[in-house]
Amino acid sequence: MTTTELNRSGTLYGIGVGPGDPELITLKAHRIIHCVPVVSYLANADGYSLARDIARESLGSGEQTQVEVPVTMLMCKDRAIANRAYDSAADSIRSYLDQGMNVAFLCEGDPLLFGSFAYILDRLENSYTVEVVPGITSISAAASAAGRAFGRLAENITILSGRHGDERILEVLISTENVAIMKPGVQRPRILRLLQEAGRLQDACYLEHVSQSEQKIVHDVSTLEIEPGPYFSIFLVTPVHTKVNRWGD
Amino acid sequence: MTTTELNRSGTLYGIGVGPGDPELITLKAHRIIHCVPVVSYLANADGYSLARDIARESLGSGEQTQVEVPVTMLMCKDRAIANRAYDSAADSIRSYLDQGMNVAFLCEGDPLLFGSFAYILDRLENSYTVEVVPGITSISAAASAAGRAFGRLAENITILSGRHGDERILEVLISTENVAIMKPGVQRPRILRLLQEAGRLQDACYLEHVSQSEQKIVHDVSTLEIEPGPYFSIFLVTPVHTKVNRWGD
Repeated sequence: MTTTELNRSGTLYGIGVGPGDPELITLKAHRIIHCVPVVSYLANADGYSLARDIARESLGSGEQTQVEVPVTMLMCKDRAIANRAYDSAADSIRSYLDQGMNVAFLCEGDPLLFGSFAYILDRLENSYTVEVVPGITSISAAASAAGRAFGRLAENITILSGRHGDERILEVLISTENVAIMKPGVQRPRILRLLQEAGRLQDACYLEHVSQSEQKIVHDVSTLEIEPGPYFSIFLVTPVHTKVNRWGD
Repeated sequence: MTTTELNRSGTLYGIGVGPGDPELITLKAHRIIHCVPVVSYLANADGYSLARDIARESLGSGEQTQVEVPVTMLMCKDRAIANRAYDSAADSIRSYLDQGMNVAFLCEGDPLLFGSFAYILDRLENSYTVEVVPGITSISAAASAAGRAFGRLAENITILSGRHGDERILEVLISTENVAIMKPGVQRPRILRLLQEAGRLQDACYLEHVSQSEQKIVHDVSTLEIEPGPYFSIFLVTPVHTKVNRWGD
Protein backbone atom coordinates (compact mmCIF):
# COMPACT_ATOMS: atom_id res chain seq x y z
CA MET A 1 0.00 0.00 0.00
CA THR A 2 1.11 3.57 -0.54
CA THR A 3 1.75 5.88 2.38
CA THR A 4 -1.42 7.82 1.62
CA GLU A 5 -3.52 4.70 1.80
CA LEU A 6 -1.76 3.63 5.01
CA ASN A 7 -2.52 7.00 6.56
CA ARG A 8 -6.20 6.64 5.82
CA SER A 9 -6.34 3.20 7.49
CA GLY A 10 -6.41 2.61 11.22
CA THR A 11 -3.49 1.17 13.17
CA LEU A 12 -3.59 -2.42 14.40
CA TYR A 13 -2.24 -2.87 17.93
CA GLY A 14 -1.21 -6.32 19.21
CA ILE A 15 -1.47 -5.95 22.97
CA GLY A 16 -0.13 -8.27 25.66
CA VAL A 17 -2.31 -8.07 28.77
CA GLY A 18 -0.05 -10.24 30.92
CA PRO A 19 -0.67 -13.47 32.86
CA GLY A 20 -3.87 -12.68 34.73
CA ASP A 21 -3.55 -9.95 37.37
CA PRO A 22 -5.08 -6.79 35.81
CA GLU A 23 -2.33 -4.78 37.54
CA LEU A 24 0.32 -6.64 35.49
CA ILE A 25 -0.79 -4.73 32.37
CA THR A 26 1.75 -2.11 31.26
CA LEU A 27 1.00 1.60 31.34
CA LYS A 28 1.20 1.61 27.52
CA ALA A 29 -1.23 -1.29 27.04
CA HIS A 30 -3.61 0.30 29.56
CA ARG A 31 -3.56 3.61 27.69
CA ILE A 32 -4.16 2.04 24.28
CA ILE A 33 -6.89 -0.38 25.46
CA HIS A 34 -8.63 2.52 27.15
CA CYS A 35 -8.76 4.80 24.12
CA VAL A 36 -9.05 2.65 20.96
CA PRO A 37 -12.50 2.54 19.32
CA VAL A 38 -12.31 -1.23 18.62
CA VAL A 39 -11.11 -4.08 20.85
CA SER A 40 -10.81 -7.67 19.60
CA TYR A 41 -9.87 -10.91 21.41
CA LEU A 42 -10.26 -14.70 21.27
CA ALA A 43 -13.25 -16.16 23.10
CA ASN A 44 -14.30 -19.75 23.80
CA ALA A 45 -17.54 -21.43 22.70
CA ASP A 46 -19.33 -19.92 25.73
CA GLY A 47 -18.19 -16.42 24.77
CA TYR A 48 -15.69 -16.17 27.64
CA SER A 49 -12.39 -14.43 26.87
CA LEU A 50 -9.55 -14.60 29.40
CA ALA A 51 -7.72 -11.74 27.65
CA ARG A 52 -10.79 -9.48 27.88
CA ASP A 53 -11.31 -10.50 31.50
CA ILE A 54 -7.72 -9.53 32.37
CA ALA A 55 -8.18 -6.17 30.60
CA ARG A 56 -11.63 -5.44 32.07
CA GLU A 57 -10.37 -2.52 34.21
CA SER A 58 -8.53 -0.98 31.25
CA LEU A 59 -11.41 -0.99 28.75
CA GLY A 60 -12.96 2.33 27.68
CA SER A 61 -14.93 4.06 30.41
CA GLY A 62 -17.98 4.70 28.29
CA GLU A 63 -17.66 8.34 27.18
CA GLN A 64 -17.32 6.94 23.69
CA THR A 65 -18.77 3.54 22.78
CA GLN A 66 -16.05 0.95 22.30
CA VAL A 67 -16.83 -1.77 19.75
CA GLU A 68 -15.87 -5.29 20.86
CA VAL A 69 -15.05 -7.97 18.29
CA PRO A 70 -14.83 -11.41 19.93
CA VAL A 71 -13.29 -14.17 17.81
CA THR A 72 -14.65 -17.60 18.69
CA MET A 73 -11.81 -20.13 18.89
CA LEU A 74 -12.64 -23.73 19.71
CA MET A 75 -10.04 -25.75 21.65
CA CYS A 76 -9.03 -28.39 19.12
CA LYS A 77 -5.90 -29.69 17.44
CA ASP A 78 -7.23 -29.20 13.91
CA ARG A 79 -5.20 -26.27 12.53
CA ALA A 80 -7.58 -25.92 9.56
CA ILE A 81 -10.38 -24.94 11.95
CA ALA A 82 -8.09 -22.52 13.81
CA ASN A 83 -6.92 -21.01 10.53
CA ARG A 84 -10.50 -20.42 9.38
CA ALA A 85 -11.21 -18.63 12.68
CA TYR A 86 -8.13 -16.42 12.19
CA ASP A 87 -9.14 -15.71 8.58
CA SER A 88 -12.54 -14.61 9.74
CA ALA A 89 -11.04 -12.53 12.59
CA ALA A 90 -8.68 -10.82 10.14
CA ASP A 91 -11.63 -9.98 7.88
CA SER A 92 -13.58 -8.40 10.74
CA ILE A 93 -10.56 -6.42 11.95
CA ARG A 94 -9.79 -5.30 8.37
CA SER A 95 -13.27 -3.84 8.00
CA TYR A 96 -12.64 -1.49 10.96
CA LEU A 97 -9.08 -0.61 9.92
CA ASP A 98 -10.36 0.28 6.43
CA GLN A 99 -12.75 2.77 8.06
CA GLY A 100 -9.73 4.45 9.68
CA MET A 101 -10.49 3.02 13.13
CA ASN A 102 -7.66 1.78 15.36
CA VAL A 103 -8.07 -1.79 16.60
CA ALA A 104 -6.44 -3.38 19.68
CA PHE A 105 -6.17 -7.17 19.59
CA LEU A 106 -5.73 -8.43 23.18
CA CYS A 107 -3.63 -11.50 24.07
CA GLU A 108 -2.96 -13.17 27.42
CA GLY A 109 0.74 -12.97 28.31
CA ASP A 110 2.85 -11.63 25.45
CA PRO A 111 1.38 -11.22 21.93
CA LEU A 112 4.30 -12.90 20.11
CA LEU A 113 5.84 -15.33 22.62
CA PHE A 114 3.53 -18.28 21.90
CA GLY A 115 0.83 -15.63 21.49
CA SER A 116 -2.21 -15.74 19.21
CA PHE A 117 -1.38 -12.35 17.72
CA ALA A 118 1.20 -14.05 15.45
CA TYR A 119 -1.65 -15.45 13.32
CA ILE A 120 -3.43 -12.09 13.03
CA LEU A 121 -0.11 -10.45 12.17
CA ASP A 122 0.55 -13.02 9.39
CA ARG A 123 -2.70 -11.97 7.74
CA LEU A 124 -2.56 -8.17 8.12
CA GLU A 125 1.06 -7.00 8.48
CA ASN A 126 1.57 -6.29 4.79
CA SER A 127 -1.49 -4.05 4.49
CA TYR A 128 -1.65 -1.99 7.67
CA THR A 129 0.47 -0.12 10.20
CA VAL A 130 0.98 -2.52 13.10
CA GLU A 131 2.35 -1.80 16.57
CA VAL A 132 2.99 -4.56 19.09
CA VAL A 133 3.03 -3.92 22.84
CA PRO A 134 4.82 -6.69 24.76
CA GLY A 135 3.22 -8.26 27.84
CA ILE A 136 4.38 -10.03 31.00
CA THR A 137 4.76 -13.73 30.21
CA SER A 138 3.46 -16.49 32.47
CA ILE A 139 7.11 -17.58 32.75
CA SER A 140 8.26 -14.31 34.34
CA ALA A 141 5.15 -14.24 36.50
CA ALA A 142 5.78 -17.83 37.64
CA ALA A 143 9.41 -17.09 38.57
CA SER A 144 8.24 -14.02 40.52
CA ALA A 145 5.46 -15.91 42.30
CA ALA A 146 7.79 -18.77 43.23
CA GLY A 147 10.63 -16.38 44.17
CA ARG A 148 13.11 -18.31 42.04
CA ALA A 149 15.89 -16.95 39.84
CA PHE A 150 15.22 -18.20 36.32
CA GLY A 151 18.59 -17.66 34.62
CA ARG A 152 21.81 -16.35 36.19
CA LEU A 153 25.02 -15.22 34.45
CA ALA A 154 26.01 -17.73 31.74
CA GLU A 155 23.16 -20.19 32.35
CA ASN A 156 20.71 -21.07 29.57
CA ILE A 157 16.93 -21.11 29.51
CA THR A 158 14.75 -23.37 27.40
CA ILE A 159 11.01 -22.94 27.09
CA LEU A 160 9.12 -25.91 25.73
CA SER A 161 5.64 -27.29 25.38
CA GLY A 162 4.46 -30.18 27.56
CA ARG A 163 3.18 -31.81 24.35
CA HIS A 164 6.67 -32.82 23.14
CA GLY A 165 7.81 -36.42 23.06
CA ASP A 166 9.76 -37.99 25.93
CA GLU A 167 13.10 -37.83 24.12
CA ARG A 168 13.00 -34.10 23.52
CA ILE A 169 11.84 -33.22 27.04
CA LEU A 170 14.51 -35.46 28.62
CA GLU A 171 17.22 -34.03 26.36
CA VAL A 172 16.33 -30.49 27.42
CA LEU A 173 16.02 -31.34 31.13
CA ILE A 174 19.46 -32.96 31.10
CA SER A 175 21.26 -30.28 29.09
CA THR A 176 19.72 -26.98 30.22
CA GLU A 177 19.95 -25.31 33.61
CA ASN A 178 16.60 -23.52 33.49
CA VAL A 179 13.56 -25.07 31.83
CA ALA A 180 9.95 -23.90 31.65
CA ILE A 181 7.48 -26.57 30.57
CA MET A 182 4.38 -24.70 29.42
CA LYS A 183 0.81 -25.89 29.81
CA PRO A 184 1.54 -29.49 30.89
CA GLY A 185 -2.21 -30.03 31.49
CA VAL A 186 -3.12 -33.67 30.87
CA GLN A 187 0.60 -34.47 30.39
CA ARG A 188 1.37 -33.80 34.05
CA PRO A 189 1.95 -37.46 35.07
CA ARG A 190 4.34 -37.93 32.14
CA ILE A 191 6.26 -34.71 32.93
CA LEU A 192 6.65 -35.80 36.57
CA ARG A 193 8.09 -39.14 35.40
CA LEU A 194 10.51 -37.37 33.03
CA LEU A 195 11.63 -34.96 35.79
CA GLN A 196 12.41 -38.01 37.94
CA GLU A 197 14.24 -39.76 35.08
CA ALA A 198 16.34 -36.64 34.43
CA GLY A 199 17.16 -36.40 38.15
CA ARG A 200 15.55 -32.96 38.37
CA LEU A 201 12.48 -33.53 40.53
CA GLN A 202 14.10 -31.52 43.34
CA ASP A 203 14.84 -28.64 40.96
CA ALA A 204 11.23 -28.26 39.85
CA CYS A 205 8.30 -26.26 41.10
CA TYR A 206 4.78 -26.27 39.68
CA LEU A 207 2.27 -23.45 39.36
CA GLU A 208 -1.36 -23.16 38.26
CA HIS A 209 -3.24 -19.98 37.26
CA VAL A 210 -0.23 -17.75 37.93
CA SER A 211 -1.05 -14.26 39.26
CA GLN A 212 -4.79 -15.05 39.26
CA SER A 213 -6.97 -15.37 42.37
CA GLU A 214 -6.88 -19.18 42.19
CA GLN A 215 -3.05 -19.28 41.92
CA LYS A 216 -1.47 -22.44 43.36
CA ILE A 217 2.28 -22.99 43.90
CA VAL A 218 3.77 -26.40 44.67
CA HIS A 219 7.42 -26.00 45.72
CA ASP A 220 7.98 -29.74 46.25
CA VAL A 221 6.62 -31.46 43.15
CA SER A 222 7.12 -34.93 44.68
CA THR A 223 3.97 -34.11 46.69
CA LEU A 224 1.93 -33.42 43.51
CA GLU A 225 -0.85 -35.88 42.63
CA ILE A 226 0.15 -38.00 39.61
CA GLU A 227 -2.90 -36.96 37.61
CA PRO A 228 -3.79 -34.43 34.90
CA GLY A 229 -3.85 -30.76 35.89
CA PRO A 230 -5.48 -27.67 34.39
CA TYR A 231 -4.38 -26.20 31.04
CA PHE A 232 -3.03 -22.97 32.58
CA SER A 233 -0.16 -24.50 34.51
CA ILE A 234 3.63 -24.50 34.27
CA PHE A 235 6.66 -26.38 35.57
CA LEU A 236 9.71 -24.22 36.30
CA VAL A 237 12.98 -26.10 36.66
CA THR A 238 15.97 -24.16 38.00
CA PRO A 239 19.38 -25.43 39.13
CA VAL A 240 18.66 -25.45 42.86
CA HIS A 241 20.18 -28.86 43.56
CA THR A 242 21.70 -29.93 40.26
CA LYS A 243 24.70 -28.50 38.49
CA VAL A 244 23.91 -28.82 34.79
CA ASN A 245 26.62 -27.89 32.39
CA ARG A 246 27.10 -30.38 29.63
CA TRP A 247 29.30 -28.08 27.60
CA GLY A 248 31.57 -27.07 30.46
CA ASP A 249 31.82 -23.44 29.38
CA MET B 1 11.87 -15.21 62.09
CA THR B 2 8.53 -15.33 63.83
CA THR B 3 5.44 -13.80 62.27
CA THR B 4 5.51 -10.98 64.82
CA GLU B 5 9.05 -10.04 63.88
CA LEU B 6 8.18 -10.23 60.16
CA ASN B 7 5.22 -7.92 60.72
CA ARG B 8 7.42 -5.30 62.29
CA SER B 9 9.84 -5.31 59.36
CA GLY B 10 9.22 -3.65 56.03
CA THR B 11 8.49 -5.59 52.84
CA LEU B 12 11.16 -5.94 50.18
CA TYR B 13 9.84 -5.55 46.61
CA GLY B 14 11.85 -6.79 43.64
CA ILE B 15 10.51 -4.70 40.78
CA GLY B 16 11.00 -5.23 37.04
CA VAL B 17 10.90 -1.88 35.23
CA GLY B 18 11.01 -3.39 31.73
CA PRO B 19 13.40 -2.89 28.82
CA GLY B 20 13.64 0.91 28.60
CA ASP B 21 10.41 2.67 27.62
CA PRO B 22 8.96 4.11 30.86
CA GLU B 23 5.49 3.20 29.54
CA LEU B 24 6.44 -0.50 29.55
CA ILE B 25 6.31 -0.49 33.36
CA THR B 26 3.31 -2.39 34.75
CA LEU B 27 0.53 -0.65 36.67
CA LYS B 28 1.60 -2.62 39.76
CA ALA B 29 5.27 -1.66 39.52
CA HIS B 30 4.28 1.98 38.92
CA ARG B 31 2.06 2.02 42.01
CA ILE B 32 4.69 0.45 44.27
CA ILE B 33 7.60 2.59 43.00
CA HIS B 34 5.46 5.68 43.49
CA CYS B 35 4.56 5.01 47.12
CA VAL B 36 7.45 3.15 48.80
CA PRO B 37 9.61 5.22 51.15
CA VAL B 38 12.89 3.64 49.91
CA VAL B 39 14.02 2.87 46.35
CA SER B 40 17.27 1.01 45.59
CA TYR B 41 18.99 0.13 42.29
CA LEU B 42 22.36 -0.71 40.74
CA ALA B 43 24.40 2.22 39.45
CA ASN B 44 27.66 2.40 37.49
CA ALA B 45 30.89 4.10 38.59
CA ASP B 46 29.53 7.45 37.33
CA GLY B 47 26.38 7.07 39.44
CA TYR B 48 24.15 6.40 36.41
CA SER B 49 21.41 3.80 36.87
CA LEU B 50 19.48 2.57 33.84
CA ALA B 51 16.78 1.04 36.07
CA ARG B 52 16.26 4.35 37.89
CA ASP B 53 16.24 6.21 34.57
CA ILE B 54 13.49 3.91 33.21
CA ALA B 55 11.46 4.41 36.40
CA ARG B 56 11.97 8.19 36.58
CA GLU B 57 8.34 9.00 35.80
CA SER B 58 7.08 6.51 38.41
CA LEU B 59 9.19 7.73 41.35
CA GLY B 60 7.46 9.47 44.26
CA SER B 61 6.13 12.91 43.40
CA GLY B 62 7.61 14.62 46.42
CA GLU B 63 4.76 14.90 48.94
CA GLN B 64 6.83 12.58 51.06
CA THR B 65 10.61 12.37 50.67
CA GLN B 66 11.67 9.13 49.01
CA VAL B 67 15.07 7.79 50.08
CA GLU B 68 17.22 6.50 47.21
CA VAL B 69 19.87 3.84 47.84
CA PRO B 70 22.14 3.42 44.79
CA VAL B 71 24.37 0.34 44.77
CA THR B 72 27.58 0.89 42.83
CA MET B 73 28.32 -2.11 40.62
CA LEU B 74 31.45 -2.07 38.50
CA MET B 75 31.34 -3.90 35.15
CA CYS B 76 33.85 -6.69 35.68
CA LYS B 77 33.98 -10.47 35.52
CA ASP B 78 35.29 -10.88 39.07
CA ARG B 79 32.33 -12.37 40.98
CA ALA B 80 34.03 -11.70 44.33
CA ILE B 81 33.78 -7.95 43.65
CA ALA B 82 30.14 -8.27 42.56
CA ASN B 83 29.34 -10.36 45.63
CA ARG B 84 30.85 -7.76 47.95
CA ALA B 85 28.69 -5.09 46.29
CA TYR B 86 25.57 -7.25 46.79
CA ASP B 87 26.56 -7.91 50.43
CA SER B 88 26.86 -4.20 51.02
CA ALA B 89 23.56 -3.50 49.19
CA ALA B 90 21.79 -6.14 51.29
CA ASP B 91 23.15 -4.52 54.48
CA SER B 92 21.86 -1.08 53.44
CA ILE B 93 18.44 -2.46 52.46
CA ARG B 94 18.25 -4.46 55.70
CA SER B 95 18.74 -1.30 57.75
CA TYR B 96 15.59 0.25 56.22
CA LEU B 97 13.53 -2.97 56.41
CA ASP B 98 14.44 -3.29 60.10
CA GLN B 99 12.97 0.19 60.67
CA GLY B 100 9.69 -1.09 59.19
CA MET B 101 10.18 0.77 55.91
CA ASN B 102 9.24 -0.91 52.60
CA VAL B 103 12.03 -1.01 50.02
CA ALA B 104 11.65 -1.38 46.23
CA PHE B 105 14.72 -2.73 44.41
CA LEU B 106 14.47 -1.77 40.71
CA CYS B 107 15.80 -3.98 37.91
CA GLU B 108 15.87 -3.46 34.15
CA GLY B 109 13.72 -6.06 32.38
CA ASP B 110 12.50 -8.79 34.73
CA PRO B 111 13.90 -9.08 38.29
CA LEU B 112 14.53 -12.86 38.12
CA LEU B 113 15.09 -13.66 34.43
CA PHE B 114 18.83 -12.93 34.33
CA GLY B 115 17.97 -10.11 36.74
CA SER B 116 20.15 -8.69 39.50
CA PHE B 117 17.40 -9.09 42.08
CA ALA B 118 18.32 -12.80 42.37
CA TYR B 119 21.44 -11.83 44.33
CA ILE B 120 19.57 -9.52 46.70
CA LEU B 121 16.91 -12.22 47.18
CA ASP B 122 19.60 -14.81 48.06
CA ARG B 123 20.73 -12.59 50.91
CA LEU B 124 17.39 -11.43 52.35
CA GLU B 125 14.63 -13.93 51.51
CA ASN B 126 14.92 -15.91 54.74
CA SER B 127 14.57 -12.86 56.97
CA TYR B 128 11.96 -10.62 55.36
CA THR B 129 8.66 -10.65 53.50
CA VAL B 130 9.53 -10.40 49.81
CA GLU B 131 7.23 -9.71 46.87
CA VAL B 132 8.49 -9.84 43.29
CA VAL B 133 6.78 -7.93 40.47
CA PRO B 134 7.68 -9.32 37.03
CA GLY B 135 8.79 -7.00 34.24
CA ILE B 136 8.77 -6.98 30.43
CA THR B 137 11.93 -8.74 29.23
CA SER B 138 14.13 -7.39 26.44
CA ILE B 139 13.28 -10.61 24.59
CA SER B 140 9.53 -9.88 24.46
CA ALA B 141 10.25 -6.25 23.66
CA ALA B 142 12.61 -7.26 20.83
CA ALA B 143 10.04 -9.64 19.30
CA SER B 144 7.41 -6.86 19.49
CA ALA B 145 9.73 -4.25 17.97
CA ALA B 146 10.77 -6.59 15.16
CA GLY B 147 7.17 -7.80 14.63
CA ARG B 148 8.29 -11.45 14.73
CA ALA B 149 6.54 -14.39 16.34
CA PHE B 150 8.98 -15.87 18.87
CA GLY B 151 7.50 -19.32 19.50
CA ARG B 152 4.44 -20.88 17.84
CA LEU B 153 2.55 -24.05 18.83
CA ALA B 154 5.01 -26.87 19.60
CA GLU B 155 8.19 -24.91 18.80
CA ASN B 156 10.89 -24.45 21.43
CA ILE B 157 12.68 -21.33 22.62
CA THR B 158 16.22 -21.17 23.97
CA ILE B 159 17.68 -18.07 25.57
CA LEU B 160 21.45 -18.00 25.86
CA SER B 161 24.30 -15.66 26.57
CA GLY B 162 26.60 -14.49 23.78
CA ARG B 163 29.50 -15.39 26.05
CA HIS B 164 29.12 -19.16 25.52
CA GLY B 165 31.63 -21.20 23.55
CA ASP B 166 31.16 -21.93 19.84
CA GLU B 167 30.04 -25.52 20.38
CA ARG B 168 27.16 -24.63 22.68
CA ILE B 169 25.87 -21.76 20.53
CA LEU B 170 26.02 -23.88 17.36
CA GLU B 171 24.28 -26.80 19.04
CA VAL B 172 21.42 -24.53 20.13
CA LEU B 173 21.13 -22.78 16.74
CA ILE B 174 20.91 -26.13 14.97
CA SER B 175 18.45 -27.80 17.33
CA THR B 176 16.08 -25.02 18.42
CA GLU B 177 13.53 -23.13 16.32
CA ASN B 178 13.63 -19.88 18.29
CA VAL B 179 16.84 -18.58 19.86
CA ALA B 180 17.57 -15.33 21.67
CA ILE B 181 21.26 -14.54 22.07
CA MET B 182 21.48 -11.96 24.83
CA LYS B 183 24.01 -9.14 25.05
CA PRO B 184 26.33 -10.27 22.25
CA GLY B 185 28.32 -7.01 22.63
CA VAL B 186 31.96 -7.60 21.71
CA GLN B 187 31.08 -11.16 20.61
CA ARG B 188 29.05 -9.89 17.64
CA PRO B 189 31.52 -10.95 14.90
CA ARG B 190 31.70 -14.46 16.37
CA ILE B 191 27.90 -14.76 16.65
CA LEU B 192 27.51 -13.70 13.00
CA ARG B 193 29.99 -16.39 11.97
CA LEU B 194 28.12 -19.03 14.02
CA LEU B 195 24.75 -17.97 12.52
CA GLN B 196 26.29 -18.49 9.08
CA GLU B 197 27.78 -21.87 10.05
CA ALA B 198 24.41 -23.01 11.41
CA GLY B 199 22.69 -21.87 8.19
CA ARG B 200 20.51 -19.44 10.14
CA LEU B 201 21.74 -16.03 9.02
CA GLN B 202 18.45 -15.47 7.14
CA ASP B 203 16.44 -16.38 10.23
CA ALA B 204 18.13 -13.79 12.43
CA CYS B 205 17.42 -10.17 13.24
CA TYR B 206 19.50 -7.92 15.49
CA LEU B 207 18.39 -5.15 17.84
CA GLU B 208 20.16 -2.56 20.00
CA HIS B 209 18.67 -0.55 22.88
CA VAL B 210 15.22 -2.11 22.47
CA SER B 211 12.28 0.21 23.26
CA GLN B 212 14.67 3.10 24.02
CA SER B 213 14.99 6.30 21.97
CA GLU B 214 18.19 5.03 20.30
CA GLN B 215 16.57 1.69 19.30
CA LYS B 216 18.05 0.12 16.16
CA ILE B 217 16.63 -2.88 14.29
CA VAL B 218 18.54 -4.76 11.60
CA HIS B 219 16.22 -7.19 9.82
CA ASP B 220 18.91 -8.48 7.44
CA VAL B 221 21.92 -9.30 9.61
CA SER B 222 24.11 -9.99 6.55
CA THR B 223 24.28 -6.16 6.24
CA LEU B 224 25.59 -5.79 9.80
CA GLU B 225 29.20 -4.60 10.25
CA ILE B 226 31.42 -7.45 11.45
CA GLU B 227 32.57 -5.57 14.51
CA PRO B 228 31.69 -5.36 18.21
CA GLY B 229 28.35 -3.79 19.14
CA PRO B 230 26.98 -2.24 22.35
CA TYR B 231 26.28 -4.33 25.47
CA PHE B 232 22.50 -3.80 25.30
CA SER B 233 21.86 -5.72 22.10
CA ILE B 234 20.19 -8.99 21.16
CA PHE B 235 19.97 -11.44 18.28
CA LEU B 236 16.54 -13.02 17.73
CA VAL B 237 16.50 -16.12 15.55
CA THR B 238 13.09 -17.41 14.44
CA PRO B 239 12.22 -20.10 11.87
CA VAL B 240 11.44 -17.74 9.00
CA HIS B 241 13.36 -19.65 6.34
CA THR B 242 14.56 -22.79 8.10
CA LYS B 243 12.50 -25.70 9.32
CA VAL B 244 14.25 -26.90 12.48
CA ASN B 245 12.95 -30.04 14.07
CA ARG B 246 15.64 -32.46 15.03
CA TRP B 247 13.30 -34.61 17.11
CA GLY B 248 10.52 -34.82 14.55
CA ASP B 249 7.73 -34.47 17.09
